[in-house]
Amino acid sequence: MKRDPELVVALPGGAPLAAALARSLRCGWSELALHQFPDGETGVRIDASVEGCCVMLAGSLNQPDAKTLPLIFAADAARDLGASQVGLIAPYLAYMRQDIRFHPGEAITSRTYARLLSSSLDFLVTVDPHLHRVHELGEIYSLRTQIVPAAPLIARWLRSHVPSPWLIGPDEESAQWVAEVARLTGAPWTVLRKTRRGDRDVSVRIAGRERWPERVPVLLDDIVSTGETMLAAASLLKRTGMRVPVCIAVHALLETQAYRHLLAGGVSRLLTCDTVPHPSNAIRMAPLLARAARQISTNQNARP
Amino acid sequence: MKRDPELVVALPGGAPLAAALARSLRCGWSELALHQFPDGETGVRIDASVEGCCVMLAGSLNQPDAKTLPLIFAADAARDLGASQVGLIAPYLAYMRQDIRFHPGEAITSRTYARLLSSSLDFLVTVDPHLHRVHELGEIYSLRTQIVPAAPLIARWLRSHVPSPWLIGPDEESAQWVAEVARLTGAPWTVLRKTRRGDRDVSVRIAGRERWPERVPVLLDDIVSTGETMLAAASLLKRTGMRVPVCIAVHALLETQAYRHLLAGGVSRLLTCDTVPHPSNAIRMAPLLARAARQISTNQNARP
Repeated sequence: MKRDPELVVALPGGAPLAAALARSLRCGWSELALHQFPDGETGVRIDASVEGCCVMLAGSLNQPDAKTLPLIFAADAARDLGASQVGLIAPYLAYMRQDIRFHPGEAITSRTYARLLSSSLDFLVTVDPHLHRVHELGEIYSLRTQIVPAAPLIARWLRSHVPSPWLIGPDEESAQWVAEVARLTGAPWTVLRKTRRGDRDVSVRIAGRERWPERVPVLLDDIVSTGETMLAAASLLKRTGMRVPVCIAVHALLETQAYRHLLAGGVSRLLTCDTVPHPSNAIRMAPLLARAARQISTNQNARP
Repeated sequence: MKRDPELVVALPGGAPLAAALARSLRCGWSELALHQFPDGETGVRIDASVEGCCVMLAGSLNQPDAKTLPLIFAADAARDLGASQVGLIAPYLAYMRQDIRFHPGEAITSRTYARLLSSSLDFLVTVDPHLHRVHELGEIYSLRTQIVPAAPLIARWLRSHVPSPWLIGPDEESAQWVAEVARLTGAPWTVLRKTRRGDRDVSVRIAGRERWPERVPVLLDDIVSTGETMLAAASLLKRTGMRVPVCIAVHALLETQAYRHLLAGGVSRLLTCDTVPHPSNAIRMAPLLARAARQISTNQNARP
């Protein structure tokens, strides 16, 4: 099958990812040029020829609000300039957390965000989106999607660094990731019970009876944001006489201060995938993302 | 004809407008509740019952980037919560200025922005959008739109404050507004020739031979943003021995510093419509906006 030439276009903050993808795909890449006008509007320009190309916009959607209009402008521009397809490689996908109305009158932003991206792009590749009450991206996204799982790479890292882990998910939402890494490593696993009282106020407890004091506890979650959940879990383990845990998250959303707070508060080490650029990044996702992008872009009949 | 109850919901910065519209419409209004999560995502909540209501989101789209996602989230939420219609009353409409590709590779943001709003709303009411190469909103917007012209109110202000004006548009794009105010006041009018070398670097010259030294020059434009165009025009008038001009703009996008710079640089007075909250506001648009909103919301068969 004939394949259109590929071109990676870096979204704001996405240059390292774009360069890595282009290396894997052996194609060119370009940075999206942004201009802020005095009236506060944003202009975007693609400084490369996209005609007849499969354009892959690349960048994580952490801190998404300032990135979303440029992304949609770039997607429309690429299509308008003759791209054969326009996809998004967003290792971290935003707006998956508000998947129901927690309080009356709230917007279910995950659905609206999915609608906006679906109306602007042909395909989407991401790493472990926060699927909770929404079980598949296809429930809310109407474009072709491909999920790259981080579990195999996390399991590989664990096998070579933590010989005897006890995998612990800090809450029930994390069970899907913890169970999969446990399956791949053959380690025992547990999920804590979490109570959230506010954005930065959570507590956890061990629900079951299982304890593995001889193993190294590995706290594993998909997203570490304020770090409060990880901290509460680490402090619980300390109180119950367990060893200092290793913390692993797929997506590092935490800012510098929260990161320092986490390291100072009983977590010896935080390790994350490089889906969001962060000092804790230790697991590279670009090669798998490139492979998934090639796959989905050449399979135009795939379902969402 | 039966009319659904109306509810005005203030977008960020739109509370004074929402209150004024609600007064004119004799209906309730509510502020959109915004929440910034630690991960940078925005949550929005409508704190009023919208079921069966015609919901009018109200607020200007100056500095639009931070306002756009909340607006779209609110529109989807209102519909999801049972609103019979969802419209937008945006006295200043954003993203009308990039209406062509000025340089290769640029996004034509006006079209994308129109697509996004059109997919989220049932109707749009605005004051004098910056129509230039796009001649009608319907060319790019696919929802019902109604334009409230500022010219009649500007003409009324001029009749009572400037007995003998000479109306001057600082560039050819302003001809449509200047000609209409001239028609309504019976004053002579001219349009200058503008050369733009950058966001803040413009020069102008008088193209024709007509001079009205006995009249008060009134510089009139739709948007005053950096103020450079107005300043260049005022300075040209000064050099050619004319009187100090009165400046009128529909939309005041200029920040405090640019405003001071303008007043210090040969413009005695700047007068604007209150489409964007600004110290120069002198002409109130809310009553006409309310009337237009009522009209378009009860005329569901109107074309874009």
